[in-house]
Amino acid sequence: MRLSERIEKQINDLSEFTSTPGEGTTRLTYSKEDLLTRNYIKNKMLEYGLTVKEDGFGNIFGKLEGTLKDAPSVLLGSHFDSVPNGGAYDGPAGVIVALEVAALFAENQLTPKYPLEIVALIEEEGARFGGGLMGSRGIVGTLSEESFKNLKDKDGITTIKAMSKIGLDFSLPKRRNPNSIKAFLELHIEQGPILEEKNISIGVVEAIVGLTQFEVTIEGKAGHAGTTPMDRRTDALVAAAQIISQIPNFAIEEGEGTVITTGRLDVLPNGANVIPNKVVFSVDIRSSKEEHINNVIKRMKELIESYHEQGIHTTAEQLLYMPPKVLSNEIKALLKDKSSDLEIPYCSIDSGAGHDAMVFSDVTDVGMLFVPSKAGLSHCPEEWSDARHLANGVQIFYEAAKCLTEVEKND
Amino acid sequence: MRLSERIEKQINDLSEFTSTPGEGTTRLTYSKEDLLTRNYIKNKMLEYGLTVKEDGFGNIFGKLEGTLKDAPSVLLGSHFDSVPNGGAYDGPAGVIVALEVAALFAENQLTPKYPLEIVALIEEEGARFGGGLMGSRGIVGTLSEESFKNLKDKDGITTIKAMSKIGLDFSLPKRRNPNSIKAFLELHIEQGPILEEKNISIGVVEAIVGLTQFEVTIEGKAGHAGTTPMDRRTDALVAAAQIISQIPNFAIEEGEGTVITTGRLDVLPNGANVIPNKVVFSVDIRSSKEEHINNVIKRMKELIESYHEQGIHTTAEQLLYMPPKVLSNEIKALLKDKSSDLEIPYCSIDSGAGHDAMVFSDVTDVGMLFVPSKAGLSHCPEEWSDARHLANGVQIFYEAAKCLTEVEKND
Repeated sequence: MRLSERIEKQINDLSEFTSTPGEGTTRLTYSKEDLLTRNYIKNKMLEYGLTVKEDGFGNIFGKLEGTLKDAPSVLLGSHFDSVPNGGAYDGPAGVIVALEVAALFAENQLTPKYPLEIVALIEEEGARFGGGLMGSRGIVGTLSEESFKNLKDKDGITTIKAMSKIGLDFSLPKRRNPNSIKAFLELHIEQGPILEEKNISIGVVEAIVGLTQFEVTIEGKAGHAGTTPMDRRTDALVAAAQIISQIPNFAIEEGEGTVITTGRLDVLPNGANVIPNKVVFSVDIRSSKEEHINNVIKRMKELIESYHEQGIHTTAEQLLYMPPKVLSNEIKALLKDKSSDLEIPYCSIDSGAGHDAMVFSDVTDVGMLFVPSKAGLSHCPEEWSDARHLANGVQIFYEAAKCLTEVEKND
Repeated sequence: MRLSERIEKQINDLSEFTSTPGEGTTRLTYSKEDLLTRNYIKNKMLEYGLTVKEDGFGNIFGKLEGTLKDAPSVLLGSHFDSVPNGGAYDGPAGVIVALEVAALFAENQLTPKYPLEIVALIEEEGARFGGGLMGSRGIVGTLSEESFKNLKDKDGITTIKAMSKIGLDFSLPKRRNPNSIKAFLELHIEQGPILEEKNISIGVVEAIVGLTQFEVTIEGKAGHAGTTPMDRRTDALVAAAQIISQIPNFAIEEGEGTVITTGRLDVLPNGANVIPNKVVFSVDIRSSKEEHINNVIKRMKELIESYHEQGIHTTAEQLLYMPPKVLSNEIKALLKDKSSDLEIPYCSIDSGAGHDAMVFSDVTDVGMLFVPSKAGLSHCPEEWSDARHLANGVQIFYEAAKCLTEVEKND
């Protein structure tokens, strides 16, 4: 079977492990679908001659030992959870690519100096326990054991209870010594329209955009839609609408790919004939430059606060802030060189989404590849990427991994 | 117990039937709270010697037979549903006043020539199935059986399914022959500040403002909040926000008390990191002059349609249109005479809210009384009216009902 067919088969195999068959992939962390996927990945690792281990968060590692004693590993992988009713590629595609690199190492009987480790990470999406990037944050230590233990899903089930339900052992080692990691490589679908429109197979990620999320609350005064004259109203929804219609300009004026989104908005009491007294909405701001993010935040806050004069009470709570991350110049150069050697068309690209790679970039050298997403769609059942692009990713990572692990006996 | 105390007790009893205890009254049509309230009202009707019937919409009728064979009834009542997190008075106050008029008929052993019917109507607010005034529109026949059957709540539950869940029988008779109705009397809280400011107990309603409600749907394209550049977005929420922030000016520019409100708005899929692909919102327009309503509709539709150029798909469905209504001169004169006889201070007033009375005015003579609302507040937990004003309403309606039903043996 050709490499792209092998990849396609594995994507299809894993997409069977969903709690919403026929309605996309729903694979929540520590669910039955997690367990089925986990066993599939562990079997593949064993098949490719790797030593399989799980850590105390349930992250999976498949290791090919190197000849150097106690040498740090080159990590290669992505996450295997999904959003509710998401696609089959976001996450697993990167795990399968990593497994196929290990398969090529096995096939060609390569012996590296530095160990190669294939990793499959949990809860990147945060769809079950919130926050996201949990597997990688656990490994690098920015998610403490204590914080992890206190997390619950929407049904009140704790992480530890959910782990034990599928036979995982919380008492296993968790945080890894950064000295045990030489580099981290991740392939992910682009989740945007750029590579498809340029008709380029591979994007070498330059930077992962910084990201902040706010929860904005606008409070006015309820009243009857028929008996409250226009000049006696303090309408929370009209104020919120004015704000939401103005903030896109702040991002457009910053430029350089800065984006701002209100994706979630809830109105209270939400009755057709009641003037809304409260509106709560999300604001998500992203940019590859911290300066742009800060400028947009400043202008948004000024705009929101200007409504105080009209008797409107407002708050803007910052829920999350991740600064932009520039990835390792050495690894970027290596990935571009290998793409050129293999005659695979590539370009530089920024990542608009957060990824586990950005968490690892705090402790090690990180490189990341994107492949085109059909119509730029992601987080939906229609999410699709061409397995031939994924196969190109395997070839580039295989060559890069041979360099980074300093393979002694080459093919 | 004094009349005002009896009224206050019943208001308090009914306010217990809410799905949001401690956060005002939420009593949606055909809910568990509807059923509890329904049983309370039916028990009161039986206690006051009335014959209880429900129709195929779930409206409740308690009838005191008259001596004239097949004579039309004098209807007296209001609705018993509420908006989400509304107050304890909007609707039920008028039902309780009507019940207390029946109690006085029973107490004084009156025998009318024309039947007296106490009515408790469903879904005036439209909070569950949209549109509003559903009970009265069903009775007069402007809401067809077919349209009623096709209505669904926001969870996709049909009217008929919801009815059967609380044991109501859709197959019962629905539309009433207009010849079976001699008059309709309704007391309602003012829901505005006028009577309280004038310190007057009773408002005799001269006219009810015209009212239209639209459901506007804005459809764009979903996308990832991080990976979709600003210039590639078709964001349904930004478009909706621009519309909602502009339409209030249309009402302000018409003047003469014209009002416009967006009270309900739902975003899909409503995730913080997904660009909304669909927004559905209500628009409620009211004025005492039809011309103002039509001008606002025209400008609103033009504005909404202008978004088609940006690749946004829109619809604006008119759910309801009620022209302004001037009430019966004879009944107005009767109510004023009785108020004078009883030495209860009254004044004329227009209604800014739509009421079931305006639906009945198409088929019969209608009279309506208002009582003051504290601070003009309504559709909120703080909604409050003095039970002494409600007791005045009972006295006036009792005298008026004796005239209209042509009571033979007087007290």
